[in-house]
Amino acid sequence: MTAEKRIPVMEIFGPTVQGEGMVIGRKTMFVRTAGCDYSCAWCDSSFTWDGSGKDDIKLMTACEVLEELKRVGGDTFAHVTLSGGNPALLRHLGELVRLLREQGIGTAVETQGSRWQDWLLEIDEVTLSPKPPSSGMTTDWDMLDDIVERLQSNGNGFSLKIVVFDEDDFDYAVKVHRRYPDVPLYVQSGNSNLNERDNQKLLSLSMAAYERLVERTMASTELRDVRVLPQLHTWLWGNKRGV
Amino acid sequence: MTAEKRIPVMEIFGPTVQGEGMVIGRKTMFVRTAGCDYSCAWCDSSFTWDGSGKDDIKLMTACEVLEELKRVGGDTFAHVTLSGGNPALLRHLGELVRLLREQGIGTAVETQGSRWQDWLLEIDEVTLSPKPPSSGMTTDWDMLDDIVERLQSNGNGFSLKIVVFDEDDFDYAVKVHRRYPDVPLYVQSGNSNLNERDNQKLLSLSMAAYERLVERTMASTELRDVRVLPQLHTWLWGNKRGV
Repeated sequence: MTAEKRIPVMEIFGPTVQGEGMVIGRKTMFVRTAGCDYSCAWCDSSFTWDGSGKDDIKLMTACEVLEELKRVGGDTFAHVTLSGGNPALLRHLGELVRLLREQGIGTAVETQGSRWQDWLLEIDEVTLSPKPPSSGMTTDWDMLDDIVERLQSNGNGFSLKIVVFDEDDFDYAVKVHRRYPDVPLYVQSGNSNLNERDNQKLLSLSMAAYERLVERTMASTELRDVRVLPQLHTWLWGNKRGV
Repeated sequence: MTAEKRIPVMEIFGPTVQGEGMVIGRKTMFVRTAGCDYSCAWCDSSFTWDGSGKDDIKLMTACEVLEELKRVGGDTFAHVTLSGGNPALLRHLGELVRLLREQGIGTAVETQGSRWQDWLLEIDEVTLSPKPPSSGMTTDWDMLDDIVERLQSNGNGFSLKIVVFDEDDFDYAVKVHRRYPDVPLYVQSGNSNLNERDNQKLLSLSMAAYERLVERTMASTELRDVRVLPQLHTWLWGNKRGV
């Protein structure tokens, strides 16, 4: 196998519970890939793209990833989440997706909707999470339109998720919902306290942020058919990595 | 309309977030009906069946319920949760289900799987929550088999949810999963502290119970393809009613 076909893997861990979006609560393993085309101001996994984690990156074949998943998770799992960074940068991730499928293992992915890969059609639960203004990123709406259309006609599980930190982000969520009214929408309260090591304090802050988002959403006549969720794993484990 | 066609309604409130199971996070209105064929030891809505709430019961037609939903929720909602008590005791709830559907309003119901009603086929998300040993109730497996079979062949959203308080309950969840391996299963940590009025204390206890259930589930080679969730509304609002 050539070097290009290897996957840049940052970490493999689990089983744990999925903390976000359409797969919330799901027992899953995580494969976190390195590299991102975005650099969100509040990214909670910036070690995947800012150079700080570059010594942890392993270039692995799909088979090696599967072996490592089995070594770490043993016989306890039936689902794998591909996260990043942006996994949709990696064309050859399709090999891993197919390998997992052959083993009867379900797959979920989260990506911002800035790149298309054909293997997205083979994922059981795709979360598209275009980034709101507070991220500092700019949405390529033509690209997002194209990706939404492809996923909608596919029939697998598919949803949009917007992380909300402030009023502008909330308006962005409304805009996304207007543009794609038939796609299930999840709004999620953002974690502004990535450096908070006091879990009790972080929990209070996160819960207050979630309550504000709940109130705002409940009052909205535009966001009627939506789900509002926190980051469950942050409530449980704070800003710790690898859980 | 005859008196028998009226629905015994305990409370109507919302919009709020659904705190549990397959509809977790969903923006929804609640219609809580009175009356239950069970009397679970730890029921968090025992006022629906133990007589303590009988003065609050209103006998309402389906149209009156819809009017009240609109009066309370205004133009902010597109989803209604039917809860109890056990709503599946009420044959005439079907009228309300159809009325909501005609208005383009989605519906969810939670019931223990002890009674069948044809209108269950018209609900968008049915949660069957058979009760584990700690409830003090006995499962009628033949009845549950029948209900699961009808819902499985229907194609709408449908899941099983088991509340877990102790080891026996966990074993019960495993038994249910073995019996219905193809039905999405949610395990949920139970709230043993129904009289706790200190929300901070309740949150710590609830979170510890959820963590224990997460740990137990992660280690299980039988519960591989499951979701583990807390009661999100209890974390937010404690034991308060009507939120």
